[in-house]
Amino acid sequence: MGYFKIMEHFKILKKSSECSARLGQINTKHGSISTPVFMPVGTKGSVKSLTSQDLYELNAKIILGNTYHLYLRPGIETIKNAGGLHKFINFERPILTDSGGFQVFSLGDLRKIDENGVHFTSHIDGAKHYFTPEKVISLQRDFGIDIMMCFDECVAYPTDYDYVKKSVDITTKWAILCKKEFEKNNDNSQFLYGIIQGGMYKDLRLKSLKSLLDIDFDGYAIGGLSVGEPIDLMYEILEFTSQYMPQDKPRYFMGLGSPIDIWKAVECGIDMFDCVMPTRNARNGTLFTFNGKINIKNAQYKNDFLPIDSECDCYTCKNHSRAYLHHLFKSDEITVFRLNTLHNINFMLKLFNMVKNSILDDNFLYTKNNFIKHFKKNSFCN
Amino acid sequence: MGYFKIMEHFKILKKSSECSARLGQINTKHGSISTPVFMPVGTKGSVKSLTSQDLYELNAKIILGNTYHLYLRPGIETIKNAGGLHKFINFERPILTDSGGFQVFSLGDLRKIDENGVHFTSHIDGAKHYFTPEKVISLQRDFGIDIMMCFDECVAYPTDYDYVKKSVDITTKWAILCKKEFEKNNDNSQFLYGIIQGGMYKDLRLKSLKSLLDIDFDGYAIGGLSVGEPIDLMYEILEFTSQYMPQDKPRYFMGLGSPIDIWKAVECGIDMFDCVMPTRNARNGTLFTFNGKINIKNAQYKNDFLPIDSECDCYTCKNHSRAYLHHLFKSDEITVFRLNTLHNINFMLKLFNMVKNSILDDNFLYTKNNFIKHFKKNSFCN
Repeated sequence: MGYFKIMEHFKILKKSSECSARLGQINTKHGSISTPVFMPVGTKGSVKSLTSQDLYELNAKIILGNTYHLYLRPGIETIKNAGGLHKFINFERPILTDSGGFQVFSLGDLRKIDENGVHFTSHIDGAKHYFTPEKVISLQRDFGIDIMMCFDECVAYPTDYDYVKKSVDITTKWAILCKKEFEKNNDNSQFLYGIIQGGMYKDLRLKSLKSLLDIDFDGYAIGGLSVGEPIDLMYEILEFTSQYMPQDKPRYFMGLGSPIDIWKAVECGIDMFDCVMPTRNARNGTLFTFNGKINIKNAQYKNDFLPIDSECDCYTCKNHSRAYLHHLFKSDEITVFRLNTLHNINFMLKLFNMVKNSILDDNFLYTKNNFIKHFKKNSFCN
Repeated sequence: MGYFKIMEHFKILKKSSECSARLGQINTKHGSISTPVFMPVGTKGSVKSLTSQDLYELNAKIILGNTYHLYLRPGIETIKNAGGLHKFINFERPILTDSGGFQVFSLGDLRKIDENGVHFTSHIDGAKHYFTPEKVISLQRDFGIDIMMCFDECVAYPTDYDYVKKSVDITTKWAILCKKEFEKNNDNSQFLYGIIQGGMYKDLRLKSLKSLLDIDFDGYAIGGLSVGEPIDLMYEILEFTSQYMPQDKPRYFMGLGSPIDIWKAVECGIDMFDCVMPTRNARNGTLFTFNGKINIKNAQYKNDFLPIDSECDCYTCKNHSRAYLHHLFKSDEITVFRLNTLHNINFMLKLFNMVKNSILDDNFLYTKNNFIKHFKKNSFCN
C-alpha cells in the first residue's frame, strides 16, 4: 500500500496548445490508464455479451460497475465472499463504480429522499432499502473498487431552479459525509471522486463545484448532463463548468456519449467517459465506423460481403461480412450480439487512440474536424 | 479433386472386442474427423452464442447446418455469392447439413406432401415453397456441404403401421432421386448419406435399410428415433437396426442425445451424433459435469465460488465461479449464454474423447459403466 501513497493518482503528460485537451495518466492499484479514456459499462458485473478475456483482448483498461445494481444483486455478502468485485467477475484491471444515485433517483415513486439519504424499493423484489452517503461509500470500499463515486442527487431535465438549488445543497452535504466515511479507512488504495450537479444553472454548477473543491476529492465528475437537454445547452454547461474544474485532477463526464460529443468534451479538458451507447447500439444492430454509423438490419447488407469496416482490426471485421451479421441479426442468432459489441467497443477504443495521438502530435483540432467530417458523411444520425 | 477420389470417405481404425463400438475416421475436403464424433448444431449458420474461433478453440471438428432454414434465410443466392456456406459463416472445417425433412414435416398444416415432394409455407414470411429430392440435393451441393443428407419423411411417434409403410416407400423413392441428382455432378468432393426410417416397426426399418443399401450411399443415418418414444423402445429399435447397417460405412444417429444414450448408441456401433441439448441446456442454465448435471439457477450456487467442474479445462471453468454464472443468469446478462455453452460443448467433446480412448484401450464397457455411475449420481434427471 505504501506504493500508492507515494504515487500520484493523476498526472498530466501533455497539454494541447490549441484547446483544453490533455493527455494524462491515472494510476490505481489495478493498473494505470492513459487518458482521455473510454470505460465500457458493465453495470451488473459484465459488459453485456463480453467476457473478461474479450475486454483484455480489446485492450479495455478500465470498466464501470454500478453500486446500486450490484448491491441489490448479487449483494455485498457474495461480492465480499468472492474477495471483492474484481475477483467475483475475474477482471483484474481498474473498476470504477457509479454510486447508484442516478439509478435510485430514476426509481420515481419507488424512492423517498430525506436529508440523510434515500429510502427506496428494489425494482427486483420490492424489498425496502435505505442508501446513505456512508452506506454507499462503505459498499464501494467492500467491493474493492479502484475509483468510487460520491452519492449524489441527479435531477431530471427540466427541473426548476429552486429544486435544483436545494438538491445541490443536499449533494454537497452528502459529499462531505462521503469524504468523511472514505477517510475513516483510507489506505490510499482507493480513490473518491466528487460529482458536480446544478442542472442547467451556471451559478448552481459553480456553487456545487466550489463546495466540492473545499472538500477536496481525487477527481471531479460532471453529473446531471446529457440527460435529455438540447445539445447546445449541454455544450454550454460543459464549457462553463469545465473551465473551473481543477487542472491537476481527473475530469469525468458521466454518461457521455456519442463520438462527436466526446471530441467536444475532450476539447474542454474532459479525461474520462462512459456510455452504454456502443454496447446498446451493438445489440440493436447499429455499428460504428469512421465513416459513420450503419444499421446492419438494413436490406442493403443482405449480399454485402465486405466487413463492417475494411480498415478495422477487430475480430468481427477480420472474420465476418456484413451479410453474415445481417443474416444472424435477422435470424435472432445471439452470436451477433457479441460480434457487434466486439466491433463497437473496439471502435470506441480506437477512437480514443486517435484522440490521444492527436494531443500527443498537437493536432487535436484538425483531427477532430477531420473525424467529424468523415463520421457525419454517411451517418443516419449524429 | 483427384485427391478425394483415391481417399476413402470412412475407415475403421479399431473395433471394440466387447461390443459393436468402433473407432473410425471420416475424410472430407475440409478435413478429417475421428469418430465417434459429436457435431454441435448450427442450424441457421451459427452454433448459438459461439463464433468460429470458439469452435476451433473447443476443437469441434464438424458442425451441422440445416438446409430448410438456410434455404429460407439467408437463401441460396446469398450463400452462393459468399462462395458457399463455409465461407459465408467463416468455418473452414467439415459441415453436414440435414436435408430439412424433419423441419418441413414439423410444419404440420403448413405443408402438403405429394409423390414428388412437399409444398410448404415459410414459417418466416408465409411464402410458398416446394421441396423435391432433387431440389434439396442441389441446394446442399450449392452450399458446398461436405456431408449431405437425403430428403426423407420423418414420421411422428406414434404413427400407425400403414402410414409408416407408405412413408417408407416415399422416403425410398426420394432416396433414389436424391442419389440420381447427386451423381449428376458428383466430383467426389461431397458425400451423400441415406436416412433409414420405419418408425417403431422392425420390418419397416429393415425394409428401409435394405432399399437404401441397394441404392448405395456414403453413409447411413437412423432418422425418426428419439422423437418422443419410450427410451426402451428407442434402444430396441436402435439395437435392431444397427446390427444390419454396413460395417464399412459411417453410421449416424440423428438428433441423439443425452450422454447416457450416446454411450449406448456407440455400443451399437453408431459413429456420428448431433443434438441441440448441450447448447439449449446451456441457455436454460443446465450444465453438464462428469458427476451429473447442475442447474446454475439454483439458489445453492449463489455463494459457490468453485467452477462448474473443478477438473474441466474450458474457458468458463478456468475463469469463472458458479456464483458468478448464477449471478449473470439471474441478472439476465447475456454473457452467461456463451459461458455456459462453451462449457457444455467442451463437456460433450471431452465425453467423446473418453469414448474414443475407451475403444482404443479396449475398455469400453467398463468406462461406459463408470461414466454412467458417476453421471447419474447427482443428476436431477437422465
